[in-house]
Amino acid sequence: MDVRYINPFLSGAMEVLNTMGGVSLQPGKPYIKKNAKAMGDVSGIIGISGEAVGSLSVSFTFGLIKAVMKNMLGDDITQVDDDVRDAVGEITNMISGSARRVLSDEGLSLKAGIPSIVDGKDHTIKHLVSNPTLVIPFDSPDGKVVVEVCMDS
Amino acid sequence: MDVRYINPFLSGAMEVLNTMGGVSLQPGKPYIKKNAKAMGDVSGIIGISGEAVGSLSVSFTFGLIKAVMKNMLGDDITQVDDDVRDAVGEITNMISGSARRVLSDEGLSLKAGIPSIVDGKDHTIKHLVSNPTLVIPFDSPDGKVVVEVCMDS
Repeated sequence: MDVRYINPFLSGAMEVLNTMGGVSLQPGKPYIKKNAKAMGDVSGIIGISGEAVGSLSVSFTFGLIKAVMKNMLGDDITQVDDDVRDAVGEITNMISGSARRVLSDEGLSLKAGIPSIVDGKDHTIKHLVSNPTLVIPFDSPDGKVVVEVCMDS
Repeated sequence: MDVRYINPFLSGAMEVLNTMGGVSLQPGKPYIKKNAKAMGDVSGIIGISGEAVGSLSVSFTFGLIKAVMKNMLGDDITQVDDDVRDAVGEITNMISGSARRVLSDEGLSLKAGIPSIVDGKDHTIKHLVSNPTLVIPFDSPDGKVVVEVCMDS
């Protein structure tokens, strides 16, 4: 995957989760995904189409999404319920939108589909593309979030 | 969701899993999804775009995907590994392709994205659309598969 694609997703995730979720993320070093090991407890997945085809996923540990729900809505959640799923879907939409705006300015026009939200302790996600999947990990005092992007041109 | 959409996905799933997977499915009564309860152990999810926007998921119990892997590839699987994920992704692609061909003949032109494959015991999937999600359950001697379709026009 073109390395130009990394930054818009990295900064999109930090901006959206800071503005909307009230959490300050510390980005780790992006890497190429080698296996489908578990990345989180609740994930949003959105398809990307247009001048490239691929998908974006955003996987939260329970601790981090709990903090986000508290900051966004004042909710003290004890489990992943429908409100949490909707919030994860909207956050995924917003990260995708933020990154696509930047990439569009750089000449790459992309569309996004509708997010699907997956919940299940230690679930894994694999994206069926021929190009490698890029993993952007983030840490915070409340927990982790991992953004995965893959695109075939 | 338009009921015309049901049959192409129902017959697509039966045809693909019979031809490719060597399993004979018994379709149950389709219903509107009320909650995000667990539907399977490994799922393929694919975004749909074009004249409608939505997503399709295909969720297998372990017993059924084990039978499919045995029939397709002669593999005796003991867990969900990368070969299983790839097979689930390809099956999801083929069901989507089969349904889209039928819908295209009926005047509804749809594109599909790239499948993502989720694995995790009893995971749930929610599709973030305003229209209801339609669930098409299938049974077989080896296990169950559930096809979920949602589309906003």
